[in-house]
Amino acid sequence: MRGYVRFLVVGLILGLAIPLLIAAVQEKSPAEEIYRGPMERDEYYMFSSGGQSGGVFVIGLPSGRLFMDLPVFEPRAAYSYAGVGMPEREMLEKTGGLWGDTHHPRLSQTGYKADGKWLYIQDKANTRVGKIDLRTFRTVLVKKAPNIQVWHGIALVPDRQGNTRYVCANGEFEAPVPPRPGLPGGYAEQPIPDVGARVPEDWKSGVVCLYADTLEPAFQVLGTYGNFDIMDWSPSGRWLLSNIYNMERGANIDEMIKAPEDATQFLDVWKAEEALGAGQYTLVNGVKVLDPKAIPGLVYLIPAPRNPHGIHCQRLDPRLYGEAALGKDTVCIAAGKIVPRVNIFDISGERPRLVAQPWVGLGPLHVQYDGRGNFYVSLFVDSQIGAYNIDKAIKFPNEPDRYTVDKIDIHYNVGHLSTVMNYSTPRGDWLLSQNKLTKGLPGFIPTGPLEPEVQELIDIRNITADGQGKMRLVYQFPTPPEPHESDFIEAEKLAPLVWTKYSRPYDPDTRFVGPGESRVVRTGPHSVDVYLTTVRSRYGLDEVRVKQGDTVTLYLSNVERLRDMTHGFALQEYGVHFAIDPGDTKKFTFVTDKPGVYWFYCTWFCSALHMEMRARLIVEPV
Amino acid sequence: MRGYVRFLVVGLILGLAIPLLIAAVQEKSPAEEIYRGPMERDEYYMFSSGGQSGGVFVIGLPSGRLFMDLPVFEPRAAYSYAGVGMPEREMLEKTGGLWGDTHHPRLSQTGYKADGKWLYIQDKANTRVGKIDLRTFRTVLVKKAPNIQVWHGIALVPDRQGNTRYVCANGEFEAPVPPRPGLPGGYAEQPIPDVGARVPEDWKSGVVCLYADTLEPAFQVLGTYGNFDIMDWSPSGRWLLSNIYNMERGANIDEMIKAPEDATQFLDVWKAEEALGAGQYTLVNGVKVLDPKAIPGLVYLIPAPRNPHGIHCQRLDPRLYGEAALGKDTVCIAAGKIVPRVNIFDISGERPRLVAQPWVGLGPLHVQYDGRGNFYVSLFVDSQIGAYNIDKAIKFPNEPDRYTVDKIDIHYNVGHLSTVMNYSTPRGDWLLSQNKLTKGLPGFIPTGPLEPEVQELIDIRNITADGQGKMRLVYQFPTPPEPHESDFIEAEKLAPLVWTKYSRPYDPDTRFVGPGESRVVRTGPHSVDVYLTTVRSRYGLDEVRVKQGDTVTLYLSNVERLRDMTHGFALQEYGVHFAIDPGDTKKFTFVTDKPGVYWFYCTWFCSALHMEMRARLIVEPV
Repeated sequence: MRGYVRFLVVGLILGLAIPLLIAAVQEKSPAEEIYRGPMERDEYYMFSSGGQSGGVFVIGLPSGRLFMDLPVFEPRAAYSYAGVGMPEREMLEKTGGLWGDTHHPRLSQTGYKADGKWLYIQDKANTRVGKIDLRTFRTVLVKKAPNIQVWHGIALVPDRQGNTRYVCANGEFEAPVPPRPGLPGGYAEQPIPDVGARVPEDWKSGVVCLYADTLEPAFQVLGTYGNFDIMDWSPSGRWLLSNIYNMERGANIDEMIKAPEDATQFLDVWKAEEALGAGQYTLVNGVKVLDPKAIPGLVYLIPAPRNPHGIHCQRLDPRLYGEAALGKDTVCIAAGKIVPRVNIFDISGERPRLVAQPWVGLGPLHVQYDGRGNFYVSLFVDSQIGAYNIDKAIKFPNEPDRYTVDKIDIHYNVGHLSTVMNYSTPRGDWLLSQNKLTKGLPGFIPTGPLEPEVQELIDIRNITADGQGKMRLVYQFPTPPEPHESDFIEAEKLAPLVWTKYSRPYDPDTRFVGPGESRVVRTGPHSVDVYLTTVRSRYGLDEVRVKQGDTVTLYLSNVERLRDMTHGFALQEYGVHFAIDPGDTKKFTFVTDKPGVYWFYCTWFCSALHMEMRARLIVEPV
Repeated sequence: MRGYVRFLVVGLILGLAIPLLIAAVQEKSPAEEIYRGPMERDEYYMFSSGGQSGGVFVIGLPSGRLFMDLPVFEPRAAYSYAGVGMPEREMLEKTGGLWGDTHHPRLSQTGYKADGKWLYIQDKANTRVGKIDLRTFRTVLVKKAPNIQVWHGIALVPDRQGNTRYVCANGEFEAPVPPRPGLPGGYAEQPIPDVGARVPEDWKSGVVCLYADTLEPAFQVLGTYGNFDIMDWSPSGRWLLSNIYNMERGANIDEMIKAPEDATQFLDVWKAEEALGAGQYTLVNGVKVLDPKAIPGLVYLIPAPRNPHGIHCQRLDPRLYGEAALGKDTVCIAAGKIVPRVNIFDISGERPRLVAQPWVGLGPLHVQYDGRGNFYVSLFVDSQIGAYNIDKAIKFPNEPDRYTVDKIDIHYNVGHLSTVMNYSTPRGDWLLSQNKLTKGLPGFIPTGPLEPEVQELIDIRNITADGQGKMRLVYQFPTPPEPHESDFIEAEKLAPLVWTKYSRPYDPDTRFVGPGESRVVRTGPHSVDVYLTTVRSRYGLDEVRVKQGDTVTLYLSNVERLRDMTHGFALQEYGVHFAIDPGDTKKFTFVTDKPGVYWFYCTWFCSALHMEMRARLIVEPV
């Protein structure tokens, strides 16, 4: 009998062990992959371009949670950014307006690694760039790029130590604005076909690089004809790459797609710096302009597939290739858009070389990497993402079956795609498909004529360095319109940089009003200065009494000592609304043209007695 | 030997069965609860107030995914809403400005059930309400409520069939604006303490009801002194409830919290309709104003806990109580804010009665229900949510242990809370804690002085009708600032109402430009009309040539036949940017004061050849 019991027990243990073993080898369910429980942090913070929303979406990965719709070019009262009378508003109005078309966010780097200090994003429409301080998640500087029209591509070029030095821009549209060069020529590797020529030959665009710290212009390099599209920099910082479409100089879509090839431009930044040092520039609108015609080797044009869109360079994962791989130039790939091919350029030598033109699928738009030897292409027409092995694609460019690793369906249509930390130290774990024109996703109810834009989270951890394995679609999450590309940083790296505990010093440059100093000062027959404090849950005065027709200048100081005790100020009928962070002072001027009693109140929730935080403006009729 | 095998097999089967049995009885993991895989739909669409973001957040539940930041009072270029020169912009500017402080969204009802047709949300700061068409997720109407200052509470009062008839507003702040009644009195159930009186007696506010379809005023009822706060309607539509704080008429926080009690106002809507029918109103600024002093029984004031905040009525779940329970008045509960109690009012009889004042915890702000007999209170100071059984709280108001079902910790501080479909047909499954001033959540990196606001998803399915069971925190997801309250609808009900397949007819009221009709028409020496079409991937003309100083009126028609093929129009330097949906025409007027070549391009991604969709404006110098 004891023998039977023993077998029963052995069977029981085996029976219990089998599901446990299965669970151990099974991959996590998609739900477990993306779920972050209470108190758990996402692994990455993704800075996703906000497109026409004019800012940056700050999204946690892998959860897909939207932490912030960070305003850059469009006002957002919720962050007290660029509201009526606020300083950022003037900055935006002076540089192009209160709207933007943001495209490609990029994080500053130290030693070739994302350092979590600054974020840059350009406004394509108004040819601007915004600089965001990631200690505070606030846009601190917006500048217009000179001498170009419509800033499409962006690149953060590092110095020889891998520290971000320049923010470079592609001007996409050509116009007879200064500079006005002669027709450039002679420096192209191959002659460029001239078809149509509906855009005059002397209409140009070009590349402009600004200093990353001040956003003041460092230098410009004249363009050839055609439209500069996407831009990237080589890891070393030597090459600045721009895809050029419409070498035909066509003025409409039919003319723009006639020629079988366009070009990728390779701009040698180190040579540009030499030329600048040697004074080989001319000043145009205060910008040092270099002419590639006059400086051999400054620019190479290499044919690219017809109307190319994305140009992206490979960075290697230092966890696999060692720290020496940081800043190492290997390959860059241009996507063909109309042609179902990509062009692979070897940039490891003295001059960039076209080494393969493998077939990838229909409508290739963008390229990303996993840092271990594979590239990923968004195929707009196929509504797929393809994964390909770089070495095999170079060795066997005519054998797609050998270099194609996997393809995965996308819902629809894939535009940008982003692998985690593709522009610094690729992690090779997640790939985001950032879809345009989402259609027919039963999970999402349409929210207007357009359905909600969607990002799809794809697991690429199973794709090996030698090009084996499968991609796996794990999650779909919506993004406000319109998702473009993203840059990433590890949450653990970002978290200690953010000003979590700073006690902001009271700003000495403003007319700060200390506790107990609230007052109304008549400065003239029709002008009044009002000094007010805010502290839970009151304004410094219960009542502010002025006369109809007064010009009132309000200085509002937040005298809280707690970092996050922001207060608001909303004054109805006079359209005044802003927030003041602790230690800060805001100034606002308005004319009291309407007599009556107008209560102002705090719009930022500050305590259980938040409702009671108000005071009244009494405008006495004259 | 066969016996041993048999025992081995029995053991094996038992061993396999045990984990399966455990899995079967175990509740789903939080990850599985919230996860919605590719192609899976959320169960509910939550319309969450956007606070200072000036709109409504459309969020899927239980996934917490943000589907849309629906603009109402603040422009959003991404939805082409209220941009420069656009018609909604004028509507906003005329009614108070391009910003809002949205508080309480409410869905229209048919037969006491959310019908998914219209969404209303008020702008507290500028005393406005916006009406959103949920077929298109677009704000179609914004109006200002007359005769009151600062619209805080909102209620959608149904007619006797349970169809939404009025949108009613509480004016929070009192002012000597019309109407100017004498001091109301005599109609309060109890005398109201008069302490401080720093706000003059003849400064008043009141309640205004607008017709839900047109947002034109239906009637107004004069207020007493004090500040109207949150508002709700009784399920039947008979009672309109408003909490009143600061009966002291204090002008600052110290004075406002002196008295031990304030009041809840019960306004009898049916009596108001009778009085209107009998002509017992006076016209003030075109609004029919009723004076409660002159109409006995129109208004009851019943004491409420000191500085009460939330007042919310119970609706019953018709799945448990039958369809007859729809529109049935049972209880309403006022939360005490400073006092750790709530007041329970029985509204099932001819007059509302205070029936219990149970202790709930510190800083009670808002109340919600599960539709099966329990209520939930946000406790701001305790940073908790409490669940309580209504019957037991009435029977044993001094025995918290008997009526308290459960308490759960919140991270921090809970403000509004929302149970799914609390204002129509409560589902009793999920409770959202909509937190203010999030602090110290390690999962969220601060994004500025303020940390990301958070909503917490709490499972209340285990709380039984007789007040047993536990709440379970399942998920935390961020919301752009600042989450207030929410209303809900089943996704399955909403989906077929949305215009998923409509082919919008070409609008005959606009100067629609048909295919092939693009042209430039000079209408005077300094004025030009430009008619342009958009269709993938071109504008109707490659070039628009005008003279410096011309006033250009642009008519842009989208001649696409595909519902979702929206195109954009961005013209740099002139600050022009908008979108046009298929079948639509947009008009924009500007003066060409700067000579040169300005390309305009499509900002809404429309095809793989989207980049090529552009044309040039040539402004000839004079």
